[in-house]
Amino acid sequence: MAVSWGTLFADRTERMHASDIRELLKLTARPEIISLAGGLPAPELFPIDEYRRAFEWVLETNGNMALQYGPSEGYRPLREFLARRMTGMGIPAEPDHVLVTSGSQQGLDLLGKIFLNPGDAVCAESPTYMGAIQAFDAYQADYVTVPMDDEGMRSQDLDDILQQHAIKFIYALPNFQNPSGRLMSEPRRELLIETARRHGVPIVEDDPYGELYFEGGPLPSLRSLWPEGVIYLGTFSKILAPGFRLGWLVAPPGLYDEFVFAKQPADLHTSMATQMATNEVCQQDDFLETHIDQIRDVYRERRNVMLRAMEEHFPPGCSWTRARGGLFVWAELPPSIDTRELLAEALAEQVAFVPGESFHPDRGGHNTMRLNFSNVTPERIEEGIARLGRAIKRRLAHVEATAERDQSVPVSP
Amino acid sequence: MAVSWGTLFADRTERMHASDIRELLKLTARPEIISLAGGLPAPELFPIDEYRRAFEWVLETNGNMALQYGPSEGYRPLREFLARRMTGMGIPAEPDHVLVTSGSQQGLDLLGKIFLNPGDAVCAESPTYMGAIQAFDAYQADYVTVPMDDEGMRSQDLDDILQQHAIKFIYALPNFQNPSGRLMSEPRRELLIETARRHGVPIVEDDPYGELYFEGGPLPSLRSLWPEGVIYLGTFSKILAPGFRLGWLVAPPGLYDEFVFAKQPADLHTSMATQMATNEVCQQDDFLETHIDQIRDVYRERRNVMLRAMEEHFPPGCSWTRARGGLFVWAELPPSIDTRELLAEALAEQVAFVPGESFHPDRGGHNTMRLNFSNVTPERIEEGIARLGRAIKRRLAHVEATAERDQSVPVSP
Repeated sequence: MAVSWGTLFADRTERMHASDIRELLKLTARPEIISLAGGLPAPELFPIDEYRRAFEWVLETNGNMALQYGPSEGYRPLREFLARRMTGMGIPAEPDHVLVTSGSQQGLDLLGKIFLNPGDAVCAESPTYMGAIQAFDAYQADYVTVPMDDEGMRSQDLDDILQQHAIKFIYALPNFQNPSGRLMSEPRRELLIETARRHGVPIVEDDPYGELYFEGGPLPSLRSLWPEGVIYLGTFSKILAPGFRLGWLVAPPGLYDEFVFAKQPADLHTSMATQMATNEVCQQDDFLETHIDQIRDVYRERRNVMLRAMEEHFPPGCSWTRARGGLFVWAELPPSIDTRELLAEALAEQVAFVPGESFHPDRGGHNTMRLNFSNVTPERIEEGIARLGRAIKRRLAHVEATAERDQSVPVSP
Repeated sequence: MAVSWGTLFADRTERMHASDIRELLKLTARPEIISLAGGLPAPELFPIDEYRRAFEWVLETNGNMALQYGPSEGYRPLREFLARRMTGMGIPAEPDHVLVTSGSQQGLDLLGKIFLNPGDAVCAESPTYMGAIQAFDAYQADYVTVPMDDEGMRSQDLDDILQQHAIKFIYALPNFQNPSGRLMSEPRRELLIETARRHGVPIVEDDPYGELYFEGGPLPSLRSLWPEGVIYLGTFSKILAPGFRLGWLVAPPGLYDEFVFAKQPADLHTSMATQMATNEVCQQDDFLETHIDQIRDVYRERRNVMLRAMEEHFPPGCSWTRARGGLFVWAELPPSIDTRELLAEALAEQVAFVPGESFHPDRGGHNTMRLNFSNVTPERIEEGIARLGRAIKRRLAHVEATAERDQSVPVSP
C-alpha cells in the first residue's frame, strides 16, 4: 500500500508553506534584475580574513573541543563576551542567562515551542518580521496587531488590546524594524513597558539592527527598562555575517532553563567551531567596533542614495520612512495600487521589491512595499529606484484608465 | 505586575525537561571518573587538519558565499556528493530530495513538527534513542513499542501493533542501535518493510552508525527496500565530527517540500561555511573511506577489550550484546538490580554508565545499562569494567542480604 502522506500530516502543516520572499528571491537571481527585494547584508563588508585566521587558530590550538559535542547553552567564553558587551551597551545580561542559538530565527522557533498552544495569541506590530510570523505559524498562533506610525508601535493602543485579549507575549522590533525601518521613540518604549508590566504580559525584543544606527545613538533597550519581563534576541547576522547562523537570546532567570530544554531536542547545540571562531573574531582589539562603524558608513550612504532617488522618481501620493538605521525603507503607495500586481510591472522593468502584504499577519498593507538598500551598490540603487518609479507611474496610469472606463460603462439594471 | 511564567507555558513544556544523560555527564566531567556513560566519538580521530585546510580554502576562494545567507535545502554540491555516495552504498537518493540539517537531531525535530499532533502515536523499538524520545515528546507524542532481541526489532510483532494502533510512523535504528548496539537481521528488515508497506505506514530509518561495522559488511538499508515509504536520516557526527552539527535527510518526493517548509522557520538554513568545508573534506581522494576504516579499527579494538573485560569481571546472571559495530554495548543485569540505584554505587567506584530506563519510552528496563567504548582508551575500559564489576557484585550482595532480612521479619497479621 502506498503511503498517503497528506493524511499523516499534523494540523500545523497547513500553516507551513513556502516563504514568499524566498520564492521571490529565486526569480530575482538573474543579474540583469536589480533586486531591492532581499534582506541580505553587503558581502563586500564580510570579515572573511578575520574568520579565516580565527578558524585556523581555533583548529590549531583547540581542535578537539571545536569538533566535539558541546553544551546546549553555548560556548562559555562566547556567552561571557556577549554578556559583557551587552551590559556595556546598557542591556542587562548575565552569562548564565545567555543561550547561544542557531541564528535568532531559532530563538523565534523556541519561543513558539515554549509558549504557544494552537490558537494562542501573539501581539505583534503591523507590519512585522515575516520570519517571526512563519515561526509562530508553525505553532498555530493567532495574532493581535498593534498599528505603527512614525514613532513605531502605537503603545497607546496597547492597554485596550491587553484588556480585550489573552496574549502570550508581545513581539516587538524597536530598532529599525524589518520591514518598516522604523525606530520606536523613547516615550513609546516607556509606555509599552509600563502597559505590558501592568498586565503582566512579557515582551520579546527582537533586535538584529540595533547597532546599525546612522544618526544619533541607540535608544534604551526594552530589556533595560524591564529585565524581569523582556526576552532579548540578538544575532551576529548583521554585524558580522549571516551564513554561520549564529545568534543568542537573553532570558529572565525563571525562564532560562525552559529555553535550554527546548533547544536540546531541536539541535543539541550550536556548532562549537563557529562559536569559538566568532569568539576569536570578537576578542580582537577594537575590531568589532571599527567594523560596525564601517557598516554604518556604507549603509548610511546607500540609504541616502535611495531616499534621494525616491524623492526624484516616485510620483506624488507616495510616502516612505526615513530609515535612520538598519537595512530597509518602507513605502506606502496610493491606495489604488496593489503592490502584488505592481511587482509584475516592476519585474518587466527588471527591478524587484517585496510587496508589503507578506509582513502583515492580518493581511493588510496591499499598497505597501519593502525596499532593501544594504545589498545593492549606490549606482544600482539609483537605477533601480528610477525603474521602480516608472513602473509605479505606469501602474497608476493603468489603474486610473481602468477606473474611468468602468465609470463610463453603463450599468445594466 | 510580575510575569508568572508558568501560567504562560504551552502544554508541551510539561514534556520538555533536562536530558538525563546531559545532567549525568556534568557529574562525570571529573577526570578521576572513568565515564562509560557518554556517546561521544574518539576525539583523537577527528580530522582537524583536514578541516583547518578546508576552512582556509573555502574562505580564501569563496568567502562571500560562505558568509552569506544560503538556501534552506542546503549547499548544492554537498547535496550532490551525499546523493552520489549514498547511491554508491545502495541507498537510493537524488540530490533534489536531500535536505541538509543542523545535525540529524534537527531531522527528528522536523519529523515531529510535520507529523505529530498531541497524542499521535510513534512506533519505536524498546529501547530506543533518547534524543528521539525527547524530540517527539516536545510534540506530545504517544509511543507504542516493539520489543527487541538479538536480531533487533521483533518485526513479527509489528502486524498486530499496526492493526491495533493508528501509527504516524515507525522509528527504527537498524544498524548498531543506540543504545543497544544491535544490528537488525536481513529477514527482520524484509519483514518490517513488508508489514509497514502493507499497512501504508512510513518508516524513519535513523542511521548514524551504519558505516561503523567491525565484522562483515553492511546489510541492505531499509530505504533500499522501500524508497517510497522510508525517510532516511544521516549524519557526519560519527564519521567526521559531531561539533559542527551537520546531518542530512532523504525524503520521498511527495514529502520533501514539507521538510523544507518546516526547516525555514526553524533556522532558515544550516551554516554555509560548515557545509562548504565539509564538502571540501569529503571531496579529497579516498580520504573519507580511509578515515572511516581507521575509526572501525580503533573502535573494534575497544569493543574487544570491553567484551573481554565484561567476561572477566561481571558476575553470573548478566548478559550483554556483542556490538558488531557502533559505539555501545548493552547489558542486562539480574532483575533484582535497579541500575539507577547501582549508579550511586558505581560513582563511588569512580565509574559511570547510563541506566537503561532512560531509553525506554514505556519506562521499562530497570535492570539494563548502556556502556560506551568509543570515547575511552583500552586501558581505561579495562579498569572501568573492573570497577563496574565490583559495584555490581556489591549491589547484588546488598540486595540479597536485604531480601533475606525481609524474609526473616515476622509479618504482623
